[in-house]
Amino acid sequence: MKAFLDDRQRRHDPRHFMANGRVLQSPEQPARVDVLKAGAEAAGCRFEAPADHGMGPVAALHSPEYLTFLQTIHTRWSRIPDASDEVIPNIHPGRRPASYPRSAAGQAGFHQADTACPIAAGTWGSAYWSAQTALSGAAALSGGAPMVYALSRPPGHHAYGDMAGGFCFLNNSAIAAEALRADGWRPAILDVDVHHGNGTQGIFEARADVLSVSIHADPARFYPFFWGHAHERGIGAGEGYNLNLPLARGTGDDDYLRTLDIALERIAAFGADVIVVALGLDAHEADPLRGLAVTTPGMGRIGAAIADTGLPCLFVQEGGYLNDALGDNLTQFLAGAAG
Amino acid sequence: MKAFLDDRQRRHDPRHFMANGRVLQSPEQPARVDVLKAGAEAAGCRFEAPADHGMGPVAALHSPEYLTFLQTIHTRWSRIPDASDEVIPNIHPGRRPASYPRSAAGQAGFHQADTACPIAAGTWGSAYWSAQTALSGAAALSGGAPMVYALSRPPGHHAYGDMAGGFCFLNNSAIAAEALRADGWRPAILDVDVHHGNGTQGIFEARADVLSVSIHADPARFYPFFWGHAHERGIGAGEGYNLNLPLARGTGDDDYLRTLDIALERIAAFGADVIVVALGLDAHEADPLRGLAVTTPGMGRIGAAIADTGLPCLFVQEGGYLNDALGDNLTQFLAGAAG
Repeated sequence: MKAFLDDRQRRHDPRHFMANGRVLQSPEQPARVDVLKAGAEAAGCRFEAPADHGMGPVAALHSPEYLTFLQTIHTRWSRIPDASDEVIPNIHPGRRPASYPRSAAGQAGFHQADTACPIAAGTWGSAYWSAQTALSGAAALSGGAPMVYALSRPPGHHAYGDMAGGFCFLNNSAIAAEALRADGWRPAILDVDVHHGNGTQGIFEARADVLSVSIHADPARFYPFFWGHAHERGIGAGEGYNLNLPLARGTGDDDYLRTLDIALERIAAFGADVIVVALGLDAHEADPLRGLAVTTPGMGRIGAAIADTGLPCLFVQEGGYLNDALGDNLTQFLAGAAG
Repeated sequence: MKAFLDDRQRRHDPRHFMANGRVLQSPEQPARVDVLKAGAEAAGCRFEAPADHGMGPVAALHSPEYLTFLQTIHTRWSRIPDASDEVIPNIHPGRRPASYPRSAAGQAGFHQADTACPIAAGTWGSAYWSAQTALSGAAALSGGAPMVYALSRPPGHHAYGDMAGGFCFLNNSAIAAEALRADGWRPAILDVDVHHGNGTQGIFEARADVLSVSIHADPARFYPFFWGHAHERGIGAGEGYNLNLPLARGTGDDDYLRTLDIALERIAAFGADVIVVALGLDAHEADPLRGLAVTTPGMGRIGAAIADTGLPCLFVQEGGYLNDALGDNLTQFLAGAAG
């Protein structure tokens, strides 16, 4: 299977991660890249460097204000006396529309939904190349490859058009899906990360030309809390084109696969001719975030079920954090998909 | 001048205050009560304990979800393993409407706009009695007193109907204004705190029966960043009933008083028969937050200009932080008002 990765994606090395009022080390570490790359190679992936598709396909979904913010905020923040090394927000516009602030602190709160997306000097470059990796995967599908793996890191599915969150800055899966659509495809995004793909939902919720389906741990008591509930079905022209399938905490393989069948039926009914899989591996039973309890063989069954649709697939890496099974989970998933 | 204060308002002793990515000691300390009380007494205030007006007038403006949250969240938060002593949010629903979360962490992000309103065991009791202090002031006006000072602490004007923020939990000034309206008055709120009264604006912005006027440092580069701009004039039926008068950083007495004239003209045109003054003292040149540069004599001139309207006035304490001039600023303000 063709695969993409750029070494500049390692530069982002976030430190600040606040949970339950305490500051911890972020689990979204550069070392994930090595583990995931080895896992993909064990499934037969051959990695190439991505091409640079430029800002156009990124700016198709992310606002100019937000992209300017991501590229400049660390330099501006660093000029604040006694500021921390990373940009961390401390106030948020709970109600929008809100007026757009000019200051670094105000913009941080406007564009960062939580304290799990600190921005340091290397963040923009890594986010940019993570998106280019996904775009190169989309281009490879358009070029005729049946399946491609994009090792996008940092991940993307919590990023809105103008808001970072949950380790994510640019929404790689959404950017790839939009590029495919612009190339004439009819894409469905299938998000199997343990967390709801709230950024993806936010980007496409008013549109009927890209279907968004997400299977995830019930957000009532799990990140991202405010989004991912079953009643969120899209808005306006997009009503009916967003499907959330929340699962009880601790759900295992068989129940997961039954829910996956519902997702794949909806994708077939949409008439999708390509699937962008937002491939989180954190639904695994050993993941430190402890949302669901899919086994390593279960990961292979999920990959195989998606491949059984016969549709071209772009697998874009999302979450999945360091644990002994991480690499093997990716190997099993991709091997299951490759059949 | 009649004045109100309850000793239970001292129990709230917040520690966590994040600014520019670093955690500092909160400037909203219980010691403010002693300084402010002495300052008011020097202006001739005689303090009484507030009566308990119950939850009705509080619940008239704050949602039941939010009030339940304020009363129960600390106990629930304390059950989370390794949680911090104070409830501090780490994710925020940047877009509303959002689904209401069931978990403590999700609710904290839903109901706390920033990291400057930590909730500890004593917070609810202090916030409740701070609101009762303001309500007792309103009742005294209805009973015929021409001017009353309510030493409300913690402050209130950043609190929305369902969201804490900026040291504030219950919006004391808004609660008092609504109680006066229910008593047959036609109230205007005049907010002279250095920060925009965003919670007050949020509570009344769709209503035409309470006028909200706020004079404050330009929020483009000052808390609360997203609100307080001149173009925010109220919404729907409330359009034209919200007046924001942002001032350049460092504005001094004369320019401040010219702007106050504009505020008082609007209050007269509204036909207000009572003014609730959201009395922050942090517009002073020595305040640690360094927004405006009103002098101590200037505080007296502001108080006198408001009293010159001849309207009954309820002065509800908002911000103003420990500095050598804090007590004297209150003395001058109230003495200026008392004439």
